[in-house]
Amino acid sequence: MSETAPPDDAGRYAYDGLDRVLHEKARLGILTALATHPRGLTFTELVRLCSLTDGNLSRHLDVLAEAELVEIQKGYDGRRPLTTCRLTAAGRGRFRAYLGHLERVLRDAAGDANAVADTPPGFATA
Amino acid sequence: MSETAPPDDAGRYAYDGLDRVLHEKARLGILTALATHPRGLTFTELVRLCSLTDGNLSRHLDVLAEAELVEIQKGYDGRRPLTTCRLTAAGRGRFRAYLGHLERVLRDAAGDANAVADTPPGFATA
Repeated sequence: MSETAPPDDAGRYAYDGLDRVLHEKARLGILTALATHPRGLTFTELVRLCSLTDGNLSRHLDVLAEAELVEIQKGYDGRRPLTTCRLTAAGRGRFRAYLGHLERVLRDAAGDANAVADTPPGFATA
Repeated sequence: MSETAPPDDAGRYAYDGLDRVLHEKARLGILTALATHPRGLTFTELVRLCSLTDGNLSRHLDVLAEAELVEIQKGYDGRRPLTTCRLTAAGRGRFRAYLGHLERVLRDAAGDANAVADTPPGFATA
């Protein structure tokens, strides 16, 4: 095949930087919500903003807290329990690094636009 | 909290368009590789470009073929078996739509930059 990539392209599309802890769809939403609300968001707000069930949000927050990406503070609003979450400094840094990797995927995929014009009608396997 | 999002922001960070079939890290790499090689890539090339084991690549290609995002052609290069993969037309369309959702995540997260300046030293839970 004329399009065979040169051997030094090994791992070109491996995207090792897309850490699964951050890349998982629900956690990506949680992290984006928290990144844009630096004072933190309550559990109830995250449930609404991310369209998650209490159980799902709780499970994903556990994963993020275990990885030290978010910190969770349990307090009170008057007499009502109030759970607030926000990114840690390390979490903000790792999320930004992750976003850089996402941008690379988009840049790589943008090569697609020119390539499409060359699409042959059938397979070129010979 | 002064930052409480208005109620009509429900689902603002749900990112339902991030279809897990395409979003999974290894499959995202495979799809990006195929999107930039419209004539297709051989199984061996994909293993190298995506740094996957034969077993992992095979498993992910099954998921992508089952979802009709890629088509797999088994042929011969002389007497050697040759498996070639490429995006289907539907797969290319769905991958582009997925990339549009990724761009939205990046735009949303970019709101982060201004927000950081307002980060208070502690939690604002009261």
